[in-house]
Amino acid sequence: MNPKLQWLRNTMSSSNLQGLIISNPINIKYLTNIEAEGVLLLTRKENIYITDGRYIEHVHSILTLYDEIIVYDRNDVSKDDYENFFMFCENVGFEENYVTYAQYKEFMRTYKINHLVETEYMIEKQRMIKDKEEISHLQKACEITDNCFNYLLTFIQPGMTEKQIADEIEEYYKKRTDGLSFETIVASGENTSKPHAVPTERKIKEQDIITIDMGCKVNGYCSDMTRTFFVGSIPEAIKPVYDLVLKNQIQTLETIKDGVSTRLLTKMVENDFKLNGYDLLHSLGHGVGMEIHEAPYISYRSDTQLKENMVVTNEPGIYLPGKFGIRIEDTVQVTKFGCISLTKSEKNYIII
Amino acid sequence: MNPKLQWLRNTMSSSNLQGLIISNPINIKYLTNIEAEGVLLLTRKENIYITDGRYIEHVHSILTLYDEIIVYDRNDVSKDDYENFFMFCENVGFEENYVTYAQYKEFMRTYKINHLVETEYMIEKQRMIKDKEEISHLQKACEITDNCFNYLLTFIQPGMTEKQIADEIEEYYKKRTDGLSFETIVASGENTSKPHAVPTERKIKEQDIITIDMGCKVNGYCSDMTRTFFVGSIPEAIKPVYDLVLKNQIQTLETIKDGVSTRLLTKMVENDFKLNGYDLLHSLGHGVGMEIHEAPYISYRSDTQLKENMVVTNEPGIYLPGKFGIRIEDTVQVTKFGCISLTKSEKNYIII
Repeated sequence: MNPKLQWLRNTMSSSNLQGLIISNPINIKYLTNIEAEGVLLLTRKENIYITDGRYIEHVHSILTLYDEIIVYDRNDVSKDDYENFFMFCENVGFEENYVTYAQYKEFMRTYKINHLVETEYMIEKQRMIKDKEEISHLQKACEITDNCFNYLLTFIQPGMTEKQIADEIEEYYKKRTDGLSFETIVASGENTSKPHAVPTERKIKEQDIITIDMGCKVNGYCSDMTRTFFVGSIPEAIKPVYDLVLKNQIQTLETIKDGVSTRLLTKMVENDFKLNGYDLLHSLGHGVGMEIHEAPYISYRSDTQLKENMVVTNEPGIYLPGKFGIRIEDTVQVTKFGCISLTKSEKNYIII
Repeated sequence: MNPKLQWLRNTMSSSNLQGLIISNPINIKYLTNIEAEGVLLLTRKENIYITDGRYIEHVHSILTLYDEIIVYDRNDVSKDDYENFFMFCENVGFEENYVTYAQYKEFMRTYKINHLVETEYMIEKQRMIKDKEEISHLQKACEITDNCFNYLLTFIQPGMTEKQIADEIEEYYKKRTDGLSFETIVASGENTSKPHAVPTERKIKEQDIITIDMGCKVNGYCSDMTRTFFVGSIPEAIKPVYDLVLKNQIQTLETIKDGVSTRLLTKMVENDFKLNGYDLLHSLGHGVGMEIHEAPYISYRSDTQLKENMVVTNEPGIYLPGKFGIRIEDTVQVTKFGCISLTKSEKNYIII
């Protein structure tokens, strides 16, 4: 059996689950490499993937005997089959954070399960720790993001619109990767005060501040990086805010390592911001992998211990409505004794 | 109060709901024009939108006094506030097809609701009937789609790849609209036999058959049109299949009107296809609006009565694996006595 499925089966048995229904397509892709519409059932003895006629050919081309997955066409599965899959299973897990309430009720009807129990992010927790292959995809995505950013520093000129710059980033990624990992943020001037700004027709001008938050996908794995930089020169009023954000970004980078609490990391930044009269409006970071935002979350609301080979963002930001905003973000890999920044672009004052 | 919220409140009271929790962002945008992360609560007396610091500025810029919506920052809402929102409400509705099981349990905890009840697509049903403004957006999106198709007939040349054509369509839309309403299908030769073909590097050649399924978004509203056409001439073997699809497309167009059953429409096409030895592999059509696929669905599985000012697609198709496929699709507006095709491109044999 493939090692990811084997790991999951071990977790199931230590959680007293005799069966599991996996419907989140990202979790299915993670475990099996299958990209299709369907459901993966782990029953007492078998791994079963149920899909429909459109995908059977694709699914068979992905799986090998080694995966030990039996594939069914939905049209060939009878009511009795469904009821038999989880017979004699005391507890069957389902993804309560993906499955809608309507689907939950449908599962109860279809599979006739005694106890349909919440799995509390069982697979998402497994996905937090990246293996060698996953890390190499993430490294590649981050490397291309650095290259794209370096290219942008020569490309951007006063007179261009935010949209034009966002389009150029999309083009750059399209030629080299599976495309964007999220909608690029290009914000300039006072637009930088919105953390989730959407690129507008505003034209870049001399003395502008520009924030770009960008990332791509390589083999299904995402990168995520933000830099804030300047046209011509840096207004004196902005410098102390930039310095404060950068100081906290570097301090976080130096603190991240196996065993550190995500809440502690957040508190450190929050306190330093508060001391200087600012707030930390959003999370300090989030996991990055097959999804651009995934566990673990680095915020005061979460309390996870970072572990070796988690990959997370480190992105403090300060936003002054109607004035400007600063965010500096890297994607970093947690190690035993520290962390490795996978995005490596310049962070000191950048002036174009 | 804005008329869409007023309409929804009327439906609520006729369904014996004293409160409603709306979390699907498309439904929130439909009702309020807000595009943000948050939840809309209709309580006994108030309309409340709860969001977070990142969106407060945007939300206030969208809403007017006329909307009668009170905006809260999530951080300013206390546990008591949450418990008070639906106090004295016997039944509170939620979107069981959007809300996950975990969120459902969270709602129960947070709002302390007696009966959290399924709303069975209440808002999606309201969205089926388009008002004047919505129809004018849909008309515009369809008009630009017709123009794009006419442009393509002069643009496409033997030697170009399917991908090149798809890229050209994306460029065309990007300059004039909010962009694609779905990933364009450009299929040529035997690729046309796959209803959901993804554009490939295959080059267009003389005697080819080409299917293009395309649409754009204007002010958040989608268009959807498919045409199948030919390079140089039409192979004799294809003509009878094209004629059969076109005949059924026109027959459906002539049957669609207020009061007609979606199942009846589907059955008519299915029967005629069967008589000629073919199957109808996919639905005959679907609603089009803020989503490219939305209610009502026109298939043998659905049984809805079409109503005035619904906007739906009419897209019969026949697919012969390894050989070719034909699909002809328009977006049409249902009227009291018939329907109006919003996409108006040529449907008789098109040869480029």
